[in-house]
Amino acid sequence: MNYRMIIYILGRMLGVEGLLMLIPAIVSFIYREKSGIAFLAVSIVLGIIYLIFGKKRPQNRMIYAKEGFVIVAAAWVMWSVFGAVPFFISGCIPNYLDAFFETVSGFTTTGATILIDIEVIPKGMVFWRSLTLWIGGMGVLVFTMMLTSLDDQNSMHLMRAEIPGPDADKLVPKARGTAKILYLIYFILTAATVGFLLLGDMDFYDALLHAFSTAGTGGFGNRNASVSYYGSAYIDGVIGVFMILFGVNFNIFFLLRMKEWKAVWKNEEVRTYLGIIAASSAVITINILGIYENVFRAFRYAAFQVSSVITSTGFYTANYNLWPELSKIILLCLIFVGSCAGSTGGGIKVSRFLILYKSIRQEIKRMLHPKAVTIVRINGKKVGKDTLRGVYMFFVCYVLILIASTLLISIDNFDFATTFSAVLAAMNNVGQGISLVGPSENFSIFSSLSKVVFCLDMLLGRLEIFPCLLLLEPDLWKRKF
Amino acid sequence: MNYRMIIYILGRMLGVEGLLMLIPAIVSFIYREKSGIAFLAVSIVLGIIYLIFGKKRPQNRMIYAKEGFVIVAAAWVMWSVFGAVPFFISGCIPNYLDAFFETVSGFTTTGATILIDIEVIPKGMVFWRSLTLWIGGMGVLVFTMMLTSLDDQNSMHLMRAEIPGPDADKLVPKARGTAKILYLIYFILTAATVGFLLLGDMDFYDALLHAFSTAGTGGFGNRNASVSYYGSAYIDGVIGVFMILFGVNFNIFFLLRMKEWKAVWKNEEVRTYLGIIAASSAVITINILGIYENVFRAFRYAAFQVSSVITSTGFYTANYNLWPELSKIILLCLIFVGSCAGSTGGGIKVSRFLILYKSIRQEIKRMLHPKAVTIVRINGKKVGKDTLRGVYMFFVCYVLILIASTLLISIDNFDFATTFSAVLAAMNNVGQGISLVGPSENFSIFSSLSKVVFCLDMLLGRLEIFPCLLLLEPDLWKRKF
Repeated sequence: MNYRMIIYILGRMLGVEGLLMLIPAIVSFIYREKSGIAFLAVSIVLGIIYLIFGKKRPQNRMIYAKEGFVIVAAAWVMWSVFGAVPFFISGCIPNYLDAFFETVSGFTTTGATILIDIEVIPKGMVFWRSLTLWIGGMGVLVFTMMLTSLDDQNSMHLMRAEIPGPDADKLVPKARGTAKILYLIYFILTAATVGFLLLGDMDFYDALLHAFSTAGTGGFGNRNASVSYYGSAYIDGVIGVFMILFGVNFNIFFLLRMKEWKAVWKNEEVRTYLGIIAASSAVITINILGIYENVFRAFRYAAFQVSSVITSTGFYTANYNLWPELSKIILLCLIFVGSCAGSTGGGIKVSRFLILYKSIRQEIKRMLHPKAVTIVRINGKKVGKDTLRGVYMFFVCYVLILIASTLLISIDNFDFATTFSAVLAAMNNVGQGISLVGPSENFSIFSSLSKVVFCLDMLLGRLEIFPCLLLLEPDLWKRKF
Repeated sequence: MNYRMIIYILGRMLGVEGLLMLIPAIVSFIYREKSGIAFLAVSIVLGIIYLIFGKKRPQNRMIYAKEGFVIVAAAWVMWSVFGAVPFFISGCIPNYLDAFFETVSGFTTTGATILIDIEVIPKGMVFWRSLTLWIGGMGVLVFTMMLTSLDDQNSMHLMRAEIPGPDADKLVPKARGTAKILYLIYFILTAATVGFLLLGDMDFYDALLHAFSTAGTGGFGNRNASVSYYGSAYIDGVIGVFMILFGVNFNIFFLLRMKEWKAVWKNEEVRTYLGIIAASSAVITINILGIYENVFRAFRYAAFQVSSVITSTGFYTANYNLWPELSKIILLCLIFVGSCAGSTGGGIKVSRFLILYKSIRQEIKRMLHPKAVTIVRINGKKVGKDTLRGVYMFFVCYVLILIASTLLISIDNFDFATTFSAVLAAMNNVGQGISLVGPSENFSIFSSLSKVVFCLDMLLGRLEIFPCLLLLEPDLWKRKF
């Protein structure tokens, strides 16, 4: 294990966080908020850390997958540890664990909050909170890679551990090249979101915040009533559509730019993803028809909530806690399914479910024709044995961690729907469930133990489990093997 | 597909059911209940079916795995279809779907009931209801195999589809030989249960019924208050211990008879199974300490409920619906885990979880040492690739069916805990969950659609999914391939 290189990279990364914190400091300055001092103070500390650990490159710069996993896990934790400090020292969130929860929730693009009233929090703080979502959306590390100068060989190990989905690394061979393209798409789509929101008469600050949240599929806002505050069908529509876009595999945008229309049209994951959104919206519309005045309004609320949940954003325009059980359970299932691989969204991912579904079909075929050769194909391409086994193992781990977390959270003795859906909401980085953690509720009701469990679940969900599990393996910590 | 042979075997099996129905007819006669006529009537009809379809052996007697699966699935459904008729024509259960539900629940050893008051039902009917559990416990087919005369080659295909767990067919090479040994163990243990219950001053009829339910890990009784009716620590203890024994892999008893003490002591599945029971009982005892007068009573209730749920029996001595959430969720997890493979119990089975756990460990190792050869071993023996993939696929299917069923049941609009735990209780053949389907509640509240879904779930759970999924594969129904 190349500890020097790990510390060096982490030092640089914290330096970048220090730079990023200057942005909310500027926002605080614009709105003449004293709490902006907190950002400056932490920024200086991070600058010092950078000067000590991140300035001098170690001689042995080789890192492998194992270092990559350690760096990724450590990076997300360290960014959250320091990112939480401004909330704490400014007194906006008086309990450090709560501040840490809020920051982990941000960087992991979960959007779960312990704040009961967001509208009393200074604008600079709210801005930082939403900015963490946007940064987290594409991965803290990919972001840092763009701003610092690691060589491509190394970067690949980090990206592989961090970008969601079973096959993230096939877009462009060079990691920095890939990161740049992905970031360009991310910037353009975010800017487009801001533009469209401004056209709907949203003020610039709100538009920026909501664009960050939409892009990061996080769902933090600056209104207690979330998007329902605006009461505008246009804004619901803009955010709804952009949530769906940010849940699409970013490769698709890359293919669109290359004018590979046929590949886009034939992409099974995107087709399935859009199919699930359409089907769920239709069923929920019918299910809630009795609650709203007409079918259009029912559809508007159904489609927005479906988009919000499947993309793991967590904005809301209607309190689905009051909907019939069928609608609620469809939404819980969508949390579980999640968005496309290679997007900013959370969940198990549509492509994994496609692979699982096709594997089951093959298994049945194998029972009938034991000697037949059976192959799982996605988009016409054969899925390798290692990838298949990886998907199965991911699914199993996912369910087992879900169960273990539910057990731990149940110590708090809330009802089953609250306990289970809160874990689901944390692990899939959605940030809201049903019952006491419904759309208009928050996570402040839980004990400290539960909050720690949720923080772990959010990180496990965002990093897709294995980089975290790897840390528990004693072999990893041996200097040589 | 050899349809003639399928019809022939099914004809014979229904004949056996007709014979078995004479037992409750005799019980009715002893207690001078008119409803006994219903058993005689159905028995005659089944006898005629046997004479028409099951008397003449077809020329081509070869059947393969595919016919085996069809026969198994059809057999369980047909036995339930006819087994339900006495309840219906006697008027004890006025709705045929309810009677069918109750019978499926019996043969699948689930023990879920739609009866609100069991104590008003005639004794012959209650006897038949418990007898279905006992018959179902070892598999309708294995039972029939012993009583009729199929050749060993064919029997193997049936047994493989029916005995729970990933490796049922390795005990003794000849299927009938295996079935005989297993049945001998089953008889002896059932007789022992009756004996010990009689020593606790239970009357003979009650003792027989409770022994049937314990052996089949079903949980039907003849008292509305289940085992808590007797209020005896001794009876709680006897049933508790025998439930645990019936949840053990029957190979263990075989090994004990062969005096292979070391193999028994080193059996990982049994060790894990007992470890889970001990740990869960301990945690629940602590968790419910405040509710009961002392630690002994808390332990007595905790241990009994744990044994009842992990073995998928479903007897109760305490209403755990009133316990804290942690205890309830531990019990739900035990439903999910289930008992040992090759036992009469339901659930995913401890051995599958062992394989999953070890596979995850291997997957983590593989991330660190990509070129290392990794092997999953159970009891020191290598688990083959096909078995591994089978276990992964089983787990995935299981979770997906659980989710799909929850969606369908949620149309009834009961709370999340009721909906989810009812599905869990049906699929794992436990028969009771929490909230509105708690230990002292029943399944009468659900709609007809839900009852049909539960029947499918019970069958899917008992037959371990794949034989049922196979029926959906169009290839199966082609005459030649």
